[in-house]
Amino acid sequence: MKCRRCGQPAVIDVRRHNAAFCADCFVHHCREQVKRAIHDFRMVEPGQRILVAVSGGKDSLALWHLLRELDYEADGLYIGQGIGEYSDHSRAATVAFADERGWKLHEIDIRGEYGFDIPGAAHATKRAPCGSCGLSKRHLFNKAALDHGYPVVATGHNLDDEAAVLLGNVLRWETGYLGRQHPVLPESPGFARKVKPLVRMGEREMAAYCVIQGIDYIVEECPMAAGNKHLGYKDVLNGLEEQSPGSKAAFLFGFLERGHEHFAATAGEERDALGRCRECGSPTSNDELCAFCRLRERAQGVDAPVELGPTRRRNRGHARSARPTSAG
Amino acid sequence: MKCRRCGQPAVIDVRRHNAAFCADCFVHHCREQVKRAIHDFRMVEPGQRILVAVSGGKDSLALWHLLRELDYEADGLYIGQGIGEYSDHSRAATVAFADERGWKLHEIDIRGEYGFDIPGAAHATKRAPCGSCGLSKRHLFNKAALDHGYPVVATGHNLDDEAAVLLGNVLRWETGYLGRQHPVLPESPGFARKVKPLVRMGEREMAAYCVIQGIDYIVEECPMAAGNKHLGYKDVLNGLEEQSPGSKAAFLFGFLERGHEHFAATAGEERDALGRCRECGSPTSNDELCAFCRLRERAQGVDAPVELGPTRRRNRGHARSARPTSAG
Repeated sequence: MKCRRCGQPAVIDVRRHNAAFCADCFVHHCREQVKRAIHDFRMVEPGQRILVAVSGGKDSLALWHLLRELDYEADGLYIGQGIGEYSDHSRAATVAFADERGWKLHEIDIRGEYGFDIPGAAHATKRAPCGSCGLSKRHLFNKAALDHGYPVVATGHNLDDEAAVLLGNVLRWETGYLGRQHPVLPESPGFARKVKPLVRMGEREMAAYCVIQGIDYIVEECPMAAGNKHLGYKDVLNGLEEQSPGSKAAFLFGFLERGHEHFAATAGEERDALGRCRECGSPTSNDELCAFCRLRERAQGVDAPVELGPTRRRNRGHARSARPTSAG
Repeated sequence: MKCRRCGQPAVIDVRRHNAAFCADCFVHHCREQVKRAIHDFRMVEPGQRILVAVSGGKDSLALWHLLRELDYEADGLYIGQGIGEYSDHSRAATVAFADERGWKLHEIDIRGEYGFDIPGAAHATKRAPCGSCGLSKRHLFNKAALDHGYPVVATGHNLDDEAAVLLGNVLRWETGYLGRQHPVLPESPGFARKVKPLVRMGEREMAAYCVIQGIDYIVEECPMAAGNKHLGYKDVLNGLEEQSPGSKAAFLFGFLERGHEHFAATAGEERDALGRCRECGSPTSNDELCAFCRLRERAQGVDAPVELGPTRRRNRGHARSARPTSAG
């Protein structure tokens, strides 16, 4: 297997591009893909500062690294969600990464600043923790960007993430979410622009980028998320990709080219109709409290242990065994 | 497990309805589901004769049976595709079914009437046989309906079929196909109305209906189709259904309620722009020959053996072994 670009021995193949690369050319390839995503979707204007949402995982650290390598003024934001040891490890990896390079890292500790954490929120709402976690992160990333004057927030969602979210939205025909699913959500009153520069990069490529660049990321996945539907959708898409390489990218980019426009109108209308939260002033479709402040109200002071996600519970307790598929 | 309707011991459960039925009540349930599909989608007007496309399989024989039980004037149409023993068996099952009941069956033998068959067409076009087969069936069902004065053609596509086709169309964002995917395609100049009254019924339920009603169908699947993408999509959806019963129906009916409208405009425009085939007079988007007449021209007289589908080839020849999934 030889590098497509220079002919030297390759260290990684990317089947959907029908290509293989040596380490140096792979790094070049990653930069080009990120440049292309930023250019094609007009993610960042010249001179704009970027706030990168970092978790200590491969995607967000690689994203921050790539944006800096491409000479963007990009700082990090870490949000401590209070998910036991997992949060401790993810914070340590993020802080070490930033310190080593002398890069600016903002930090928010939800429990310290808002009086609740994700295990408590999941307990209080009696719902899957991923909902509370996503809601809190979206709110706090946006707030931090506005507070610190970053016009753009960048997240590390990669091709695999976006395709899995799309599959979930399509399986339930969530037309509102389909209208909002895009690598760029434009700025609007009360909202910074949200961009996903890794949308052309697969999960496996991001791990390879980190290894090649010596980026020490946490491999551990969130224990509360293990076995959730999103991971199931990733498995489905990986199965299809294995059968026919490129099908994942065709699904996501086909949607962006030919599907999204059909649902975009709805999303615009929803944003136009927003009011203001009486607690924090954030845009909200509810006249009284935004979703984050409602969550905070319910979860404040609730003390609950880290509940393991469906798969982890199963593996630990042997309470449910995998059942063979029966048709229908 | 007790019958939801009468409390007697049940013989079948339908997990997405969270219900179980005894044999009599299951038959009643099937009739109600078909009545509801016909009513909700306005498939048939009072007094309209229906031409049922029958293959000898469970879905089409059960459909014909159900329509007759519901007092529709429904006759059958069998198309012999020349797929070796499989076609011989499917014809035998269909003719026996019709003869036993004294029901009217039209027959078309593609090789006898048009000088080609599906193995020859697959060989001549160097493409998967399912394309040539579907194209020929759509053309000939429509032609037969117009020739014999049936305003409505009914096919046995069930919930599993339609959901799998939808998944394929969505994975490639085939917006034209998405606009045409509906349980009713209205009549228009040169086209009979096409309806799918089994759209609310799962594959497993159709098999159970046949067993309970003593309908002798061919269990054998087409050897040329084994392992095609459509069957792969069914597996994917069965996996999701197993994890969360009802997700297949939510996917299909969510599309029909909230997705289809976004793509329907395109389909209407395409139909309006059709010309006429110079050979057979059928509507066609090509000014010269319709797709069926083009296929006939290429495949006429081509003699090719029945090629086994990808799975069968694999199982027989051990030429390719299953590979473990590598991420990305």
